[in-house]
Amino acid sequence: MQAETIAPTATDFDEAARDAVYRAIFTRRDIRGQFLPRPVPDELLARLLIAAHHAPSVGYMQPWNFILIRDAARKARIRDLVCRASAEEVRQIEDARQVLYRSLKLDGIIEAPVNICVTCDRSRAADTPLGRWHNREMDLYSTVCAVQNLWLAARAEGIGVGWVSILDKEELKDLLGIPAEVTPVAYLCLGYVSDFAARPELESKGWRKRLALDELVSSESWTGAGEDNLKALIRSA
Amino acid sequence: MQAETIAPTATDFDEAARDAVYRAIFTRRDIRGQFLPRPVPDELLARLLIAAHHAPSVGYMQPWNFILIRDAARKARIRDLVCRASAEEVRQIEDARQVLYRSLKLDGIIEAPVNICVTCDRSRAADTPLGRWHNREMDLYSTVCAVQNLWLAARAEGIGVGWVSILDKEELKDLLGIPAEVTPVAYLCLGYVSDFAARPELESKGWRKRLALDELVSSESWTGAGEDNLKALIRSA
Repeated sequence: MQAETIAPTATDFDEAARDAVYRAIFTRRDIRGQFLPRPVPDELLARLLIAAHHAPSVGYMQPWNFILIRDAARKARIRDLVCRASAEEVRQIEDARQVLYRSLKLDGIIEAPVNICVTCDRSRAADTPLGRWHNREMDLYSTVCAVQNLWLAARAEGIGVGWVSILDKEELKDLLGIPAEVTPVAYLCLGYVSDFAARPELESKGWRKRLALDELVSSESWTGAGEDNLKALIRSA
Repeated sequence: MQAETIAPTATDFDEAARDAVYRAIFTRRDIRGQFLPRPVPDELLARLLIAAHHAPSVGYMQPWNFILIRDAARKARIRDLVCRASAEEVRQIEDARQVLYRSLKLDGIIEAPVNICVTCDRSRAADTPLGRWHNREMDLYSTVCAVQNLWLAARAEGIGVGWVSILDKEELKDLLGIPAEVTPVAYLCLGYVSDFAARPELESKGWRKRLALDELVSSESWTGAGEDNLKALIRSA
């Protein structure tokens, strides 16, 4: 890996390398139903964790920890949390969509051979809050960057990842013995997959459409018109 | 780009493509001082925004917007926010580190040809809070995933990105006319760079060291011993 010893330049990505990065970004999926039982080698898991550990972090605080869950009994208890939370959440969804909601597979906790809880230790580097005095949530955001690094590296390795957010975080903390000052940011399910779908599942199942990106871009302010050339390029991409 | 039409399989990344993804992850840097005045082509900016737009989002809500800031006068006003916030923040840093803190360059707002404020519209898809009823912060986390996608795509394009978090978010909202229900998640500076440093600047300048990743990994619970093989592989990577 030698992550530390690479001496990069601004031109060190040729077109194929650049395209590989975009391919990981465009073909990454949130996996719930396509996990295979095939074990994930430790060598590969090590690479994914190293990728996560190279995320940006505010003040270089590296607030993350990684709890690996493989035990079937523990996975079953976490899955119970999701079932309970899902039964609560569906009541908050507009009536017309509740049938569709119930038809969705929302997690692959049991089938995925490895689960990883990625946490943020909010007390880490408390005496040097560089970059997070005004915005205390920056440590949480750094941890999310670690998750996204892991997710994209996993895609390049042919490993699917699903982020399960339908659960009560306090109950999850109890189940995993996570201290009060530590926040679980992401509960991830990992494994080889039968396929990566061509489109996000919530799009293909009709939950929501992909928004028009050019309508989400503005110039100089929230309502600022302009950037017409950029928007035209986005529309024609 | 044809982001929608790629039909991926689990084996579609050969070793070179996989390594390119890791290279983007390992050589990405938080850029403050290395920006060049060379303009960033709109074609390239469009690719970066499309990459951001393909981030995972809870319930596929795509809560993000992108405000591009190029105007020198506006950048100067935002830079004033950072100077003021930095003067406040330094007083929160332990005494022995304040000299080092003051010596750090903490933003490249003026020099970077393009700034982008990435926001999260917390009211979007309010009637269908799939995946965020129990964890309301998931929309913010989705927006961070978009930032990290953009950051890694930028690295592959030879574009440096710096995330400026030392500012008062309410003042930034005022300056950019951002509505109450929308949260600025990241203020980014983008541009070509003279170089990507071999190590993170806060590491090379002695602010903090990279933590030992194997000590951040546990098995089945926060205090769980185990995963010895995985930890040994991490140590030897």
